[in-house]
Amino acid sequence: MGSTRLVVIGGDAAGMSAASQARRRRDASDLTIVALERGRHVSYAACGIPYLVGGVVASPDELIARRAETFRADLDIDVRSRHDVVDVDVDAGVVLVRDLEAEVEYREHFDELVIATGAVPVRPKLPGFDATGTFGLQILDDGIALRHAIETTDPRKAVVIGGGYIGLEVAEALVMRGLSVTLVEAAAQPMRTLDVDMGALVADALRNVGVTLVLGEPVTGIEERDGRVAAVMTSERTLPADLVVFGLDNRPNSDLAARAGVPVGVTTGIVTDSRMHTGVDGIWAAGDCVETYHRVSERPVAIALGTHANKQGRVAGINIGGGQAAFPGVIGTAISKICDVEVARTGLNETEATEAGFDHVAASITSTTRAGYFPEAQPVQVKLVAQQRSGRLLGGQIVGGEGAAKRIDVLAVAIWNSMTVEEMTGLDLAYAPPFAPVWDPVLVAARKAQERLESSTPSTGMTEEWPTRPGTGCPPALA
Amino acid sequence: MGSTRLVVIGGDAAGMSAASQARRRRDASDLTIVALERGRHVSYAACGIPYLVGGVVASPDELIARRAETFRADLDIDVRSRHDVVDVDVDAGVVLVRDLEAEVEYREHFDELVIATGAVPVRPKLPGFDATGTFGLQILDDGIALRHAIETTDPRKAVVIGGGYIGLEVAEALVMRGLSVTLVEAAAQPMRTLDVDMGALVADALRNVGVTLVLGEPVTGIEERDGRVAAVMTSERTLPADLVVFGLDNRPNSDLAARAGVPVGVTTGIVTDSRMHTGVDGIWAAGDCVETYHRVSERPVAIALGTHANKQGRVAGINIGGGQAAFPGVIGTAISKICDVEVARTGLNETEATEAGFDHVAASITSTTRAGYFPEAQPVQVKLVAQQRSGRLLGGQIVGGEGAAKRIDVLAVAIWNSMTVEEMTGLDLAYAPPFAPVWDPVLVAARKAQERLESSTPSTGMTEEWPTRPGTGCPPALA
Repeated sequence: MGSTRLVVIGGDAAGMSAASQARRRRDASDLTIVALERGRHVSYAACGIPYLVGGVVASPDELIARRAETFRADLDIDVRSRHDVVDVDVDAGVVLVRDLEAEVEYREHFDELVIATGAVPVRPKLPGFDATGTFGLQILDDGIALRHAIETTDPRKAVVIGGGYIGLEVAEALVMRGLSVTLVEAAAQPMRTLDVDMGALVADALRNVGVTLVLGEPVTGIEERDGRVAAVMTSERTLPADLVVFGLDNRPNSDLAARAGVPVGVTTGIVTDSRMHTGVDGIWAAGDCVETYHRVSERPVAIALGTHANKQGRVAGINIGGGQAAFPGVIGTAISKICDVEVARTGLNETEATEAGFDHVAASITSTTRAGYFPEAQPVQVKLVAQQRSGRLLGGQIVGGEGAAKRIDVLAVAIWNSMTVEEMTGLDLAYAPPFAPVWDPVLVAARKAQERLESSTPSTGMTEEWPTRPGTGCPPALA
Repeated sequence: MGSTRLVVIGGDAAGMSAASQARRRRDASDLTIVALERGRHVSYAACGIPYLVGGVVASPDELIARRAETFRADLDIDVRSRHDVVDVDVDAGVVLVRDLEAEVEYREHFDELVIATGAVPVRPKLPGFDATGTFGLQILDDGIALRHAIETTDPRKAVVIGGGYIGLEVAEALVMRGLSVTLVEAAAQPMRTLDVDMGALVADALRNVGVTLVLGEPVTGIEERDGRVAAVMTSERTLPADLVVFGLDNRPNSDLAARAGVPVGVTTGIVTDSRMHTGVDGIWAAGDCVETYHRVSERPVAIALGTHANKQGRVAGINIGGGQAAFPGVIGTAISKICDVEVARTGLNETEATEAGFDHVAASITSTTRAGYFPEAQPVQVKLVAQQRSGRLLGGQIVGGEGAAKRIDVLAVAIWNSMTVEEMTGLDLAYAPPFAPVWDPVLVAARKAQERLESSTPSTGMTEEWPTRPGTGCPPALA
């Protein structure tokens, strides 16, 4: 034999990226690869699930990047779906696997192990939280089940619990399906990763497409009737519901690793070095189950996001394959939309900057996505947070119409390179009337931030008036 | 009095930015400002002229950011349109002004002078080049005249001379107006600021919307009949034409400055330091008439573009106002579109990298603007040029459907910060299915460039197959 045996736990973005990259560098005679996935599907686009629910994506098949058979045929990777790893014996180099179809358990030897167990949704154990008619949106089967319920049970009223990215996206999906949607959020505003002033724009956008917002009220339970959900109860009221969807945050699914003695950090994510090695001989980890390094706050964070999972899996796979790669950490970039209003953020918001110990100023401007005179120029609001003395950009937030939010990438690259807002005002960004005003909105914001720094006025956290509130329309469902 | 006297020559982007910024810092009791503009209009969006011609912009008024009266009333700036400066006496601190309406000349004293005389179109002196029915697109009056001709003379056939940005945009405009359009370019492809492989995609896009391309044939003259243009003659053929539009390059309008003894560089642009000072006491210059510094090639360049003009004017104005500001140079970022195909570039292309003495590799990839399964995901081709040994990103080119081209800004900020393509593969760019694939196209390109560097394969300059050629439709004219 002489062949090394790589076992991957989890067959989605991180796990299959790791497996594929390892295979690219070591062929089957040198490296045997077994990938074990609890669910039915491997290598699918989990971030696309809300769009499957909304009918924007026509079929679950479209979300599946590669099937198990493809991995077997093309890459000689032994992918086993519906196989759950229930225990890891690090010292013996063995995982205990349960075949969920055959209902048998067996032991699988490994020389190298990649833990890519993903995240689990936070789903508080309150009365009725698992009643018929309640849905999560964690795995593809969840999305298929919710879509099936929408199409077969004729629901009228939906309650979405949680106002983060998933909550926002599923609210959009349900609006597109013609349901009457209420979004409940325990905090005073949706999108807590934004500052209050920018979050208020998102709240407006939700209301403008017909979503009822119930803010600042924790959910206390779910009322059942005839074995089905009937209402969601908050501290203040009862909200009738035919469907309830949980759009709450995720936490790293690190229990298996912790039980095996693999160190877990303050975020409950698995701790790794930049090579995605856990420090335990032969054990790697990648994706939503790990904690990573925030390059601005310089603190550990756990952020469940497909693009990080992909990159981390690739890094682990290259290193297992004998190459050299490092995952450099994150800066908290995120993007979403509610119908025609786009939302994005990167780096630290004001609250996070304060928590991380940065004296800072904030500046917020309104501009347009194209030259103001160009048809379909959309309003855009850009807020920047800069370090008080150095002028270094710490974070940015954008809310606006079509073409607004991907501008966050300019801010992300600027933060990545520790640029000051003054340096940013000179950036040679692309200008032509269909694409930007003569000063791109992000440069206008940098100028304003620089002026704030010069006048050293402490931030009030207030934004300027929004010129034209976007978000009055929602496209029809395609399916 | 005791007041300083600032005279600004040229009332568009650079001149009026300089005047406005100087005024922000010094009030009228301290600084008298006179702005002299040869044309009828000041402070208008010259880059919008092709869209006025195409009817995308309904009226010339929409392109005028501020009128002379507004500058007078709000900023106490004495703006005089139709006033041409015919001579500058640097030693005496006097400009000789011709009032084009009253047809008189007078002298105007200055303590500080801003030369913002813009660019002049290259318009070779060949037979017939000023016949009735020929148009430039340099100033707003040119655009108004061309639009008037389209609307009143019922032209059927148009020939556009020059395949750069202006030629591309005016070709689009004329297609939208329903004309039969031929574009003549002396080089073997349009968009010479792109490499041949990427330029070919632009050529395809032009052909797809019905533009006939005549490439590699210099224009030899224009045939007149009954005092009007009848045809454009190239080295190879005669092209019948009711309208001829010059979309050739610009050169800095530095003649006045040169005559006054202000140094002019190899590009024929006025030489300044980063403060936009010419080195001649009290004389500043900004905008299309200056040469600036290319941060990658480290050579002087002259690039006529509204966003540079604005920034340079602002820098000059801040410094005249007693503040401190520097223009940091450019990296050659540009963006345009032909109907639904977007085009952008930044930094150095392969030819320019070679000329600047960089050993380099190139990598080109195809991807999509959104997740592949997301509706309206458009094809996008990204080409990167990286320095051979260091891996530093030298340049990038993008051609693709809606949402493709503004991604050039990510590359621009990366180049600005001397990032290597390997560093880029770790960038935390925004990901969600409506906005990008899980690996943004620019990151896929960075990965490919990194692989090229590792294998040290010299670039072949060839791109991969374009999966779906974009550019089969053109929106109708709005006016």
